[in-house]
Amino acid sequence: MKLVVLASGEGTNLQAIIDAINSKILENISIEYVISDNPEAYALKRAKKYGINTILISKSNMREILYRHFKLVDLVVLAGFMKILPPELIEDNKIINLHPSLLPLFGGKGMFGLRVHRAVIESGMKVSGATVHFVTADVDAGPIIMQECVPVDPYDTPESLQEKVHKVEQRILIKSIQIIERGNYKIEGKKVIY
Amino acid sequence: MKLVVLASGEGTNLQAIIDAINSKILENISIEYVISDNPEAYALKRAKKYGINTILISKSNMREILYRHFKLVDLVVLAGFMKILPPELIEDNKIINLHPSLLPLFGGKGMFGLRVHRAVIESGMKVSGATVHFVTADVDAGPIIMQECVPVDPYDTPESLQEKVHKVEQRILIKSIQIIERGNYKIEGKKVIY
Repeated sequence: MKLVVLASGEGTNLQAIIDAINSKILENISIEYVISDNPEAYALKRAKKYGINTILISKSNMREILYRHFKLVDLVVLAGFMKILPPELIEDNKIINLHPSLLPLFGGKGMFGLRVHRAVIESGMKVSGATVHFVTADVDAGPIIMQECVPVDPYDTPESLQEKVHKVEQRILIKSIQIIERGNYKIEGKKVIY
Repeated sequence: MKLVVLASGEGTNLQAIIDAINSKILENISIEYVISDNPEAYALKRAKKYGINTILISKSNMREILYRHFKLVDLVVLAGFMKILPPELIEDNKIINLHPSLLPLFGGKGMFGLRVHRAVIESGMKVSGATVHFVTADVDAGPIIMQECVPVDPYDTPESLQEKVHKVEQRILIKSIQIIERGNYKIEGKKVIY
């Protein structure tokens, strides 16, 4: 199964996928391209280090480059990608997104990175978590593949909460890719069954 | 600390409080009254078995009876009580409610019992949980004292999910009563800090 990974920042989740491939936790999987909208994204450096093709996109060429490369792979992984995909690029069950909260909570336009964790803390909730879901035209509202929780402690900051959620993100991202690669799942309404 | 417990059904959470008192997990705490709106509530039978005063309320006398008994205790515990309290009975930090979901998800008017779990399953979420919160005039939206998650499995039914959530409910209800009894918490905005 060929992947393209889209990332805007550190690329820690990209690194988790690379590690899982190298240690054979993920089998029959290769990352063909890493695409970023941010020239400073450390994700690009990581990809280069492992000899993976990197592509930098801009507002003007994003649609065309993504369209072309999505056709060349089996699965598109949005791993900390901070742009919303043009709806015409969205193909059923082909794109997955990792979001740092328990969707449908704290999702939608503008809800990226530390903003999500700040909103969780202000809400007074005592749990947060991460979600991997199929991307549909509704932002952050596609069928959920995996979710996992973390406790929110009274003195958590957005940064400390982000760190806890990161650990969970990596685990559920790898497991979700495994489920898709094995192909033994089905989607019924909003439920992903495996 | 004197409690009144309000319950409409089985009273399994009432039983958990009674057990925690008898085994000294909860200290300096007594249940003065168990009040129900349902003459068939098994909660009433449980209370009688332990010599606790029971009171059955109706639509017409609910407001007056609750008002009078709330004044006689330190803490009001809504443990599976399926009526919404008249707003004039709500006193800051005096009433706690146990809800079988991760609020603010799947709360509000009409969201009781199996309906909650059915809605969770239909949403496709992979986690659910329980919440204990202070009651405010906004239904199911007061400051959250404790939350805990459970996984939602692909073949969970509302009944099987309810059973899993029940176990968590009892634990966080007992811990929340402990926190309040010890008095070492404060409320800042929507956050309960302890």
